[in-house]
Amino acid sequence: MIDKVIAHIESQRSNNESRLKDFLRIPSVSTEPERKGDTRKAGEWVHKLFSQCGIKSELIETPGHPAVFADTGAGGGQGPTVLVYGHYDVQPVGDEKLWHSPAFEPTVRDGALYARGSADDKGQVLAHLLAAEAWMKVSGKLPIRVKYLIEGEEEIGSPNLEAIIRKNKDKLACDYVVLSDTPKFDMTTPAITYGTKGLIYKEIVLTSPKQNLHSGSYGGTLTNPANALCVIIASLRDSKNKVTIAGFYDDVRPISDDERKRMRELNFDENAYREAMGAPSLEGEEGFSTLERRWARPTVDVNGLLSGFTGAGSSTIIPSRAMAKVSMRIVPDQKPDKISKAFDEAVKKAAPKGVRLEILNHAAAAAYVAPMNTPGMAAAAEALKAGFGKAPVFIREGGTLPILPMFKEVLGADSIMMGLCMPDCNAHGPNEFFHLSDLHNGSKSAAHFVEALARPR
Amino acid sequence: MIDKVIAHIESQRSNNESRLKDFLRIPSVSTEPERKGDTRKAGEWVHKLFSQCGIKSELIETPGHPAVFADTGAGGGQGPTVLVYGHYDVQPVGDEKLWHSPAFEPTVRDGALYARGSADDKGQVLAHLLAAEAWMKVSGKLPIRVKYLIEGEEEIGSPNLEAIIRKNKDKLACDYVVLSDTPKFDMTTPAITYGTKGLIYKEIVLTSPKQNLHSGSYGGTLTNPANALCVIIASLRDSKNKVTIAGFYDDVRPISDDERKRMRELNFDENAYREAMGAPSLEGEEGFSTLERRWARPTVDVNGLLSGFTGAGSSTIIPSRAMAKVSMRIVPDQKPDKISKAFDEAVKKAAPKGVRLEILNHAAAAAYVAPMNTPGMAAAAEALKAGFGKAPVFIREGGTLPILPMFKEVLGADSIMMGLCMPDCNAHGPNEFFHLSDLHNGSKSAAHFVEALARPR
Repeated sequence: MIDKVIAHIESQRSNNESRLKDFLRIPSVSTEPERKGDTRKAGEWVHKLFSQCGIKSELIETPGHPAVFADTGAGGGQGPTVLVYGHYDVQPVGDEKLWHSPAFEPTVRDGALYARGSADDKGQVLAHLLAAEAWMKVSGKLPIRVKYLIEGEEEIGSPNLEAIIRKNKDKLACDYVVLSDTPKFDMTTPAITYGTKGLIYKEIVLTSPKQNLHSGSYGGTLTNPANALCVIIASLRDSKNKVTIAGFYDDVRPISDDERKRMRELNFDENAYREAMGAPSLEGEEGFSTLERRWARPTVDVNGLLSGFTGAGSSTIIPSRAMAKVSMRIVPDQKPDKISKAFDEAVKKAAPKGVRLEILNHAAAAAYVAPMNTPGMAAAAEALKAGFGKAPVFIREGGTLPILPMFKEVLGADSIMMGLCMPDCNAHGPNEFFHLSDLHNGSKSAAHFVEALARPR
Repeated sequence: MIDKVIAHIESQRSNNESRLKDFLRIPSVSTEPERKGDTRKAGEWVHKLFSQCGIKSELIETPGHPAVFADTGAGGGQGPTVLVYGHYDVQPVGDEKLWHSPAFEPTVRDGALYARGSADDKGQVLAHLLAAEAWMKVSGKLPIRVKYLIEGEEEIGSPNLEAIIRKNKDKLACDYVVLSDTPKFDMTTPAITYGTKGLIYKEIVLTSPKQNLHSGSYGGTLTNPANALCVIIASLRDSKNKVTIAGFYDDVRPISDDERKRMRELNFDENAYREAMGAPSLEGEEGFSTLERRWARPTVDVNGLLSGFTGAGSSTIIPSRAMAKVSMRIVPDQKPDKISKAFDEAVKKAAPKGVRLEILNHAAAAAYVAPMNTPGMAAAAEALKAGFGKAPVFIREGGTLPILPMFKEVLGADSIMMGLCMPDCNAHGPNEFFHLSDLHNGSKSAAHFVEALARPR
């Protein structure tokens, strides 16, 4: 049966490409109020695609943009149930002048389809939908039960997703959550991302004099909040780039020998990575490799600084206020609450006398790591190999997906991230693209995945 | 003779007040190109006042605004020669809405004349001119030779002053420079400011990645320039607020017991000072009093910080660039060149690996302290006591006047700063004012000063 499904997908290449273009022409920018109608239109487009191939689908309304829920039904098969999660909303265009072709006029150059949302996430979502469609066309059903939740608010932080999932807990019940919203490892190698870092985001605000003061007339007689801020920030790490916050590493899950070996064996080009960033050298926590630090070690980074006079030339002032945005990327099994409190304590302790200190909390989300030895992981690896003709590698990600621990908590299901797009696909930037070959290989992988899961292991 | 001169000044109170108002109505904002004509007009007004009372005067042209030079001539008397320095240009108005009466419509409220430039420096300059006029009216000459250099570019950093002085070195030759461009100590107490701090102003720029990077995907693998900047800044001082730059204190002139005693005896209200600043507490270099730190100890202060994301909420980035404006107020006998180099070395040494470092130089000026035991100082103290009915106190100033060491170097003359205006006169801010009583007492003090200097000591 799978051969016929794959053959069907092959036969639909041109049709599938033009449908992706249709999907991409809808400017579903969820953050722009004037695009509210267009965003809904993209949701309805997904809803219609399900309906047309005979999969029951509905729109779940929210205070913002609706989510699309679809379900192949219990009659599917004997294997585990899968929930495919994705999103139909896209990032804003940004500076139009930086785009070589308009963001919402999908344009093919050298086999890549350029359009906003092509990789993040419409192209990757569509691969799963086209696989389902092929199964329905060829056999009238899928070999396992598959549910789909395609939301329209991912790019604005999924403000209504948790409520949807808690409210529809039984409806969404599943054994695995599958996402395709992460990249491949390189041009030819698909990847399964099995872990993400958590995020704690703080803002430190120090104030001292009620207004900026003349640095000559007043300097030396009071604490300068900008100097004090630097003292606090500098105190958070030592010269080996170890975080000095008390208890920070207590719950950090050590990198296993097995994982360390897997990372070492990846064909990771440190110099190319450094050059792509434009950094003079690669630096970080002593005792860990670049990939270990990137994926599995917690960090403390300043995201922004602002104080006093920042124009050209000089202005001799003691600033009234100094601000730093500071984020921590945490790893399993660091607890966001505990780390958040420890950070606050460390900052208070490091603050010099003579300033008023305020700490704002902007985000707190846990890290996530999926278990590796599940039938779902094995099926995903097998499917990607079949779809792309090359076995995937297993990687982690330094970014944060708060929905993963939430899926685990509410649905009890682990997540499998099958990456179909290029690592340099310009998601969120100008000239976002998705290789058409990745659309086809991704569709075939998704078709293989449900077949592989249906087989007894 | 001095009694008649003082009587003449008394008789002219109303006339003198209305002439100050005339002077203040000229919007001589030197930094505003559209005020170029008005600025010159104020210079011509000063020139005319000299001519009308029989003192030879001329305009010294510059690429910018002209300076007014006047000279009572060698026939004056036997005493030392004095050069009165001042300026006829004023600061911009700033936010007009904050002024209770228009900046260039001089308005009297509660005995104070409100107008831009009233204290800084037209009112204080005019006191010296009115004293000269009174001497000329009453005796046809001054008891000593007095020269005047009233420039029109002080508020833009006196770009042409040094050239004027070097070029006219012989013409300007004098034993003392007298300035009235500093404040009294309080409402009733005139002050002689005998020292100023120097200034070295730097900008530290750190760069690492070529653009802002996702803090999740890249964090932990490169040096974050904002973190690195904080490490550098924090390294410049220890927990006792001692500057840690190598050799920083080597040439600092210790505060003498005599000076320390004089500072201690000043009626300085620490709590009122702290409250006026709005600071939670007074802090600074361990082992020195507030006034000692303010006037006689060198400082390192951040004037501004800028890096990465500074808007509301959160953006998870590793910034590409981080910048700090850092100034040092230096004291006798610290050498600007030496301290500048030591700063650069300290910053380079403290910079973590993995960032590109650039240090810009915005200013370098030496500190100045006048000798206390000169006939000029004694005459100034006597004159202020006679004019204000209360002996002056001797104070220093944390701000910087690069012209003072320049006068010393080029003309070989020490400076005497006779402060006539209120400390809270709002120079540079809205609602600048000058008490009319200070105009009259200042004029009388200036008249007494030349008489006191003429007397053999």
